[in-house]
Order: sequence, then C-alpha cells, then structure tokens
Amino acid sequence: MDKTKEVLHINGNFIEGQQQSKEWITLSLLYLMETKAYSDIKVTEIAKKSGLARQTIYRNYEDKDDILYDYLCHQFNFFDDRIKERQLAEADVLIAFFEMWKEFLPASLLYNIQLSDRKIRQIIYRSLEYFVQYKYTAYFIAPQASIGEMHYYVFRSLSSALHGILIEWSLQHYEQSPEQIGKLTYQLTDSIRQYCIEHTIP
Amino acid sequence: MDKTKEVLHINGNFIEGQQQSKEWITLSLLYLMETKAYSDIKVTEIAKKSGLARQTIYRNYEDKDDILYDYLCHQFNFFDDRIKERQLAEADVLIAFFEMWKEFLPASLLYNIQLSDRKIRQIIYRSLEYFVQYKYTAYFIAPQASIGEMHYYVFRSLSSALHGILIEWSLQHYEQSPEQIGKLTYQLTDSIRQYCIEHTIP
Repeated sequence: MDKTKEVLHINGNFIEGQQQSKEWITLSLLYLMETKAYSDIKVTEIAKKSGLARQTIYRNYEDKDDILYDYLCHQFNFFDDRIKERQLAEADVLIAFFEMWKEFLPASLLYNIQLSDRKIRQIIYRSLEYFVQYKYTAYFIAPQASIGEMHYYVFRSLSSALHGILIEWSLQHYEQSPEQIGKLTYQLTDSIRQYCIEHTIP
Repeated sequence: MDKTKEVLHINGNFIEGQQQSKEWITLSLLYLMETKAYSDIKVTEIAKKSGLARQTIYRNYEDKDDILYDYLCHQFNFFDDRIKERQLAEADVLIAFFEMWKEFLPASLLYNIQLSDRKIRQIIYRSLEYFVQYKYTAYFIAPQASIGEMHYYVFRSLSSALHGILIEWSLQHYEQSPEQIGKLTYQLTDSIRQYCIEHTIP
C-alpha cells in the first residue's frame, strides 16, 4: 500500500480536493489487486475499501476498467513530463520509459500481469496506445503533423510492439536492464519512426 | 456453413479418417460462431452440433480455445505452403499472407473479431506467434539459426505488430488492398527483420 501511495504522490497528477476521491478509488483498487485477480474484483469491494458510495465511483469513472486505464494514462503523462524535463531524445526516451515502468509499476499490477489476466493486458495496451499517439510521437514528428490515412496502422503497430516487449519484460521479472530493453525496442521500431517521418503531412 | 466447409477442404490439412472428427468439431464451432459470440459457446453445444460425445472433443483438444488455435495454425501452415509454392520473397510474402487472410477467414471469425471478443484476439495472437516463429522467419533467416537471448522480444514485437495491423484491417472491413497493407507491414517491420539478420547465430 505504501509503495503505490508513494507512486501516486510522486506522480502528482492527482490534485487536492475534487481529485481526492479519484485517488482513494485508485489506491483501493491497486490495494485489492495485491491479493486478488483484477477480473474478480467488484466495484462494490472498491467502494467498501475506499469508504465511498458506489455512486461516487460511477460519478468519477465509467466502470472498473476506466479506473485502471485512467491511472495508467496518468502514469504515462508523468513519465512523459520527466522525459521532457530531462530533454531526452532517440533511444534515451525509451530507456527512460522502461526505467520508470520498472520503478513505478505497483507490485499489484505486476502480480496481475503475471497471473496472465487478459483484461489487464488489454487495458495496458489501450493506455500505451494513448501514450504512443499523444505523447511518444511528439519525440520524432511535429506535434500538429498528420501521417496520412494509414496512421491507424502505424500507431497500432508501434503500440503493439511496445506492449509485446513490455509485457514479456515484466513476465521475465525485468531480467534485462532498462537500457538493454530500451535500446532493443528503439532498434526494432526504427522503421516505424522512419515511416512516420517520411509520411508526415505538415 | 458452406463457406467455412469450403475453406477447410481447400485447406487440405484435415485428412480423412482419424482427422474426420477434428474437422466436424472445427466446422461446428465455426458454424456456432456465426450467430453467437465465441466466449458464450459451450463445449456441450459443439458436441451437440457435431453429433459427437463431449469426451471425443476432449480426446482431440485440450479445450475450446485449442480448437480455434489448432484451426488457425493449420490455416497459417496452408498459407505458408502456398507462399512457398509460389516462391515469393520480401514484401510479396506479406502481401500473399493478407490476401489469403481476406480470402479464407470464415465470416464467423470476422464477425467475432468485430464483436471485440478479447479471447478471439488472444487466440489469433498466439497462432500468429506460431506463424512468425516457425514459418515466417524462414523467409529471411536460415532455418536452424538462432537470434540470441533477445529472441523472445524480437518474435513478440513482430507478432504483436502483425497482429495489431491484421486486427485493425479486419475491423476496417479490409478497406485497403492486401497489396497496400502487405507493403505497409513490410515497411513497418523492416527493422525487426534487419535485427534478426544482424544477430543471427548460425
């Protein structure tokens, strides 16, 4: 519990007041996931753990998946802020991404990835798609640029490759260093970035 | 039903006698999937439809997922045989792969992909991983070659990218031609093949 709490505080995306219930809800879900498979957790249990009414949860989130998706997107925004602060480029962006994933991923989420919970993997995939499309591409193409009608496929292939590697690395208990895995990912996805650069419509 | 039956016959991987029950089981599952979500289909229903005992199904397959996985692997073997016969190379291998996916994918499977059935997507992913690792890599590295300790990540990223594109293309009702999508996939995955070629241990 302390670890995940710390993560959310360092993260700093959950602001005071209005956002306080969101933080409680997220912490409760992550806490429950420490001992229980994500798919088996009911919204009622999250309500009980957080001391909030079920309707408060549904006022803040569409459903349980939305809590986790929102949390992961916040984490990735936070990763992105730190990468920008450090003015990283090229392979270093991905190395930092893997470093932070290893450092900040709550044990409960890692535990659920290892349980082979398909739902968890799908939510991680969706949040990575968000990261790739709205954050990561800014490191190699102009922010307002479009990459033409094939952009769905390009973002999908990049998100899918990143997801495949991230899940495998997590399953292998981070056997390789973030530097090794970040460099490898950078190498393997080089032609996708090249495609984006060559097909950018300003 | 006729369409899927035809596919399996053209496929030619389901041989007479011993394999006849497997064909009946597969056809029954695909037929049931035409009107029902894959996840909702019970093995009892497959048994009823095929006129076989539940225990005959379990003698041939571990579970329901195994029926679909086995079917898809057979299809990919068949694709691979045709690609080899035509002596294709480079981007043409992938173009032919997408052509055959469009031509031979049963309507019931496409319908289930469009239902966003997560289980279906996972089984397709696993069968693509089989195809990539045991069939597709032979088009650019020597058959007995190994690509070192990072090979898990390399195969995963290639299978994931191919899967992401294939699912998106199916969801978009094959809007682009197999040639367009095959060429795009070839371009996007170029650095993965390059990595394999450079890191091959003979």
